[in-house]
Amino acid sequence: MKTFVLASASPRRSAILSQLRIPFRTEPSSFEEEGTGIPPEERPLRFAEGKALDIARKFPGEFVLGFDTLVFLDGCPLGKPKDCAEALAMLRSLNGRSHRVVSGVALAYGGKLLASDAEVTAVLFRRVPERELERYVDSGEPMGKAGAYAIQGLGAGLVESIDGCFYNVVGLPVAKTLKIIENLGE
Amino acid sequence: MKTFVLASASPRRSAILSQLRIPFRTEPSSFEEEGTGIPPEERPLRFAEGKALDIARKFPGEFVLGFDTLVFLDGCPLGKPKDCAEALAMLRSLNGRSHRVVSGVALAYGGKLLASDAEVTAVLFRRVPERELERYVDSGEPMGKAGAYAIQGLGAGLVESIDGCFYNVVGLPVAKTLKIIENLGE
Repeated sequence: MKTFVLASASPRRSAILSQLRIPFRTEPSSFEEEGTGIPPEERPLRFAEGKALDIARKFPGEFVLGFDTLVFLDGCPLGKPKDCAEALAMLRSLNGRSHRVVSGVALAYGGKLLASDAEVTAVLFRRVPERELERYVDSGEPMGKAGAYAIQGLGAGLVESIDGCFYNVVGLPVAKTLKIIENLGE
Repeated sequence: MKTFVLASASPRRSAILSQLRIPFRTEPSSFEEEGTGIPPEERPLRFAEGKALDIARKFPGEFVLGFDTLVFLDGCPLGKPKDCAEALAMLRSLNGRSHRVVSGVALAYGGKLLASDAEVTAVLFRRVPERELERYVDSGEPMGKAGAYAIQGLGAGLVESIDGCFYNVVGLPVAKTLKIIENLGE
């Protein structure tokens, strides 16, 4: 099997590629996620493409995978919280309701985009008391996470159910990524 | 928070309770899973109750959690494969189709059942070529797994999407378990 370059510093994405036994190494992209002018729901796809192309230009001759994930509540994107107060506000807004997680995946080679796609997973949160949300913020886990939670961590306890790809919520749409890789041949 | 006794030897269930930071220790049950006379879809609930009661009788004064998981295809239960040939047959039957995973959870104390419930998650498999299924069987992962796959492992690559609780497929229905624990008070 080919070895890929993962254009991401996310340990969660590395863990999923390892779980799938896809050979890869990591080269974090310095691509600037400039949302201006791009409709919010398209951003994960465009940012994944931007990251993959950025690294593919630096390493010609290598197959580069880029990813990006955003959480949407009522069509509005929730990024990573700036501080604990913002994390708590995000969790309050998600509490007892359904939201959408969109992840983009892109494959680039020699500065050219070979394929890209996006995947949506619906996530329904349990309704939990305010003190549970505060306790979760105190755990420190919400920081650095889009939407202020990690479904693969303690945040699993906030989730009632999902509809779609679980790993898409973690940050990597497994079935779409495998389809793109399989289309390359071996 | 109370400390629970987990009536299961499953390292996957231990990992999920640890992830949720629920204090527990493990006492595997020797409860015999006798399906005769119990409608298949009720078995995970009844077996979870049987395991919890078995350990609660041995350790009076402790809160015991029992779990059981079965995979259903067209209403027929798929257990753990006996050998590689049976694992491959199970994977072939699941390939490109949807099936249901049912997990039961039960809480017992002093030989009495306090609460129990069951959760269903629908899992849609991707359609993959026969050689992918053979490769997966060769990995050894299917052995010891109901339905011959592990969604939390390499088997993630076989799954297109799910509808319900992800951890229910791994073997522990998170939201239902938390609800039962929360009803106990602190």
